[in-house]
Amino acid sequence: MYKLNENYLKLPGSYLFSAIGKKVSAYSAANPDKKIIRLGIGDVTQPLVPAIIQALHGAVDEMGKAETFRGYAPDLGYEFLRKAIAENDYEARGCEIAADEIFISDGAKCDSGNIQEIFSTDNRIAVCDPVYPVYVDSNVMAGRAGEYDKFRETWSNVIYMPCTAANGFAPELPDETPDLIYLCFPNNPTGAAVTRQQLQKWVDYACRVGAVIIYDAAYEAYISEPDIPHSIYECKGARNCAIELRSFSKNAGFTGVRLGFTVVPRDLKCGDVALHSLWARRHGTKYNGAPYIVQRAGEAVYSQEGKAQLKEQVAYYMNNASYIYHGLKEAGYTVSGGINAPYIWLKTPDGLTSWEFFDRLLENVNVVGTPGSGFGPSGEGYFRLTAFGSYENTVEAVDRIRRM
Amino acid sequence: MYKLNENYLKLPGSYLFSAIGKKVSAYSAANPDKKIIRLGIGDVTQPLVPAIIQALHGAVDEMGKAETFRGYAPDLGYEFLRKAIAENDYEARGCEIAADEIFISDGAKCDSGNIQEIFSTDNRIAVCDPVYPVYVDSNVMAGRAGEYDKFRETWSNVIYMPCTAANGFAPELPDETPDLIYLCFPNNPTGAAVTRQQLQKWVDYACRVGAVIIYDAAYEAYISEPDIPHSIYECKGARNCAIELRSFSKNAGFTGVRLGFTVVPRDLKCGDVALHSLWARRHGTKYNGAPYIVQRAGEAVYSQEGKAQLKEQVAYYMNNASYIYHGLKEAGYTVSGGINAPYIWLKTPDGLTSWEFFDRLLENVNVVGTPGSGFGPSGEGYFRLTAFGSYENTVEAVDRIRRM
Repeated sequence: MYKLNENYLKLPGSYLFSAIGKKVSAYSAANPDKKIIRLGIGDVTQPLVPAIIQALHGAVDEMGKAETFRGYAPDLGYEFLRKAIAENDYEARGCEIAADEIFISDGAKCDSGNIQEIFSTDNRIAVCDPVYPVYVDSNVMAGRAGEYDKFRETWSNVIYMPCTAANGFAPELPDETPDLIYLCFPNNPTGAAVTRQQLQKWVDYACRVGAVIIYDAAYEAYISEPDIPHSIYECKGARNCAIELRSFSKNAGFTGVRLGFTVVPRDLKCGDVALHSLWARRHGTKYNGAPYIVQRAGEAVYSQEGKAQLKEQVAYYMNNASYIYHGLKEAGYTVSGGINAPYIWLKTPDGLTSWEFFDRLLENVNVVGTPGSGFGPSGEGYFRLTAFGSYENTVEAVDRIRRM
Repeated sequence: MYKLNENYLKLPGSYLFSAIGKKVSAYSAANPDKKIIRLGIGDVTQPLVPAIIQALHGAVDEMGKAETFRGYAPDLGYEFLRKAIAENDYEARGCEIAADEIFISDGAKCDSGNIQEIFSTDNRIAVCDPVYPVYVDSNVMAGRAGEYDKFRETWSNVIYMPCTAANGFAPELPDETPDLIYLCFPNNPTGAAVTRQQLQKWVDYACRVGAVIIYDAAYEAYISEPDIPHSIYECKGARNCAIELRSFSKNAGFTGVRLGFTVVPRDLKCGDVALHSLWARRHGTKYNGAPYIVQRAGEAVYSQEGKAQLKEQVAYYMNNASYIYHGLKEAGYTVSGGINAPYIWLKTPDGLTSWEFFDRLLENVNVVGTPGSGFGPSGEGYFRLTAFGSYENTVEAVDRIRRM
């Protein structure tokens, strides 16, 4: 008789955003006349820019003709896209990353969930607290997390690194030594960023203790300050200890288009074995490439028109971020983030829990955000608002909260 | 110090099609004047049909306007596509499969590699021999396959079910009892099919011994005979023991578009736990949906125009299959497959090994096929040719082989 993966059964409740969805649906059904504004899930709202639409149409036409039709893509992704990434995201920033160290994928969520697979199940992970749920949940599924403590809402074998107001939402080096360290900067959910110097400290630490950093840079396009690194490979030694995950979802609005990539430098080795070869083997065996038309859309992100149009799109969202940040600050809320990231991290007023504040916002002013406690215990008493709404909705949401 | 997943290091050599690619590149480099015809890898060559191109353009336009832009897709996939599948692939064939038992994905290769993850690593798998390499390799990576015997080219903990001329390339029920049984009919690589009655025997067996059948029906569009089942759910009891994998790669030419789906019936339970809920959790945590534009392309596969155009496309490839089958048979080769599948399975002449015949074809007549031994020990002495080339190339390849 077959058996199931018991680790799946340890996972508590449902995925955070499903829980929010259900609450909002129930409220909506009971109050059909209310106009709800959603600043919860990190989904974008602006349409794809013209340069990308044009590239998509062009690639679709190619697929309709025998001479230009494309079947299976090369295992790592098309050279034209990997080259554009290597030049624009790395070479232009002084990072030494070659095109064949880049693996094209259908998005950073998949990669961040799958990357743990090339490591031993004995490895111990460290995560920021609060944190994007996929890092922990995918390790639970693999049997790396230990047992769940439902009162503390933590896993026995995971090292949590609190990110609090006291440390400026940047974690301290952990007391216990991890094997795999998940870092995401600019951060989801807190919107905090770290300086190049702060990140260098982590790279030095990982090299010293023999850990691998899995660096999620999905929000790098939102960086506005000069001393914030866009890539971990801006730090010395990172080629020996770091894997970087990147997304097109937030810099180019590809949440529904699906494209991302992972960088595994050839210098990253465990003994004689290059991690590049293991990830290549996984990619070649359990994945079959991003669509050709989507890879052409990705190429257009790096064209001159694409860059100019996307700069405007990012500025549009960052203008929302600024409106939320300043609007709530003026109204007496304690806020952070929103300067190098599209997320505003808000301290709940009146000692409310995150979910109590969620209910208050939903019921009193029909605004949906994300309870900070959903991202981990140190998120309790905090609340995340995203800048990805339309400008009109963002303004209305902030004004409603201010009048509350 | 971190450690790697040791199971990856057990995998011998490289993926079959990479090995072929390297041999062909080397020959090509040494003989730049030779025109090589590739009937090796199962990649399609005909362009997307007009109904699909039109759907893609339409969806691209939607993504360019704020009112119709789509971000993250629903976890299971868009309702419009799941409904079209439920109606056309299941209801129309008398199978009881609901739209919410269908999980849209980016292809059957990914699903067939990932599906093992929801099962215990203690489970024992059974596979046909020869077999599509992904089933075994993904289980090796998960630690379910035991140790590799490099002389027998088999894994110690895998149950192999030989598919030979003696049993008409349809496996017998195994002597040892497996927990997970991988079946693919119409079969890759042999091109063999099983009747509804033969498949019913497997469903009854799985229900009796408490095994799950993972049924890969990627080639069902090529079935031409009436008593061959298109879905395992045409068999009684399959809702209690079977998961079905489907692809759009071969019926609609989506190898470079990437779309597939997996069916997990709600009746499939291990004790109280529905496998549907585990796969939903994996899908929601480690995957983020197929692109909206690609899901619209999938919908067009089921439109009236789409169906008519794709019927012609499948007929085009099956005409190739027939040409290969009859051409080689008349020339004295022993051939099978090609009637309900786009693959022709050829016995190598003169007692040659599969790779010796590969070399002979490549060097003497510049035709590339796939060595049967690459799919497992019982594939030794066989060779796979695909019907996915252009008609002109197929005719020329067969004529070259006949003249050899």
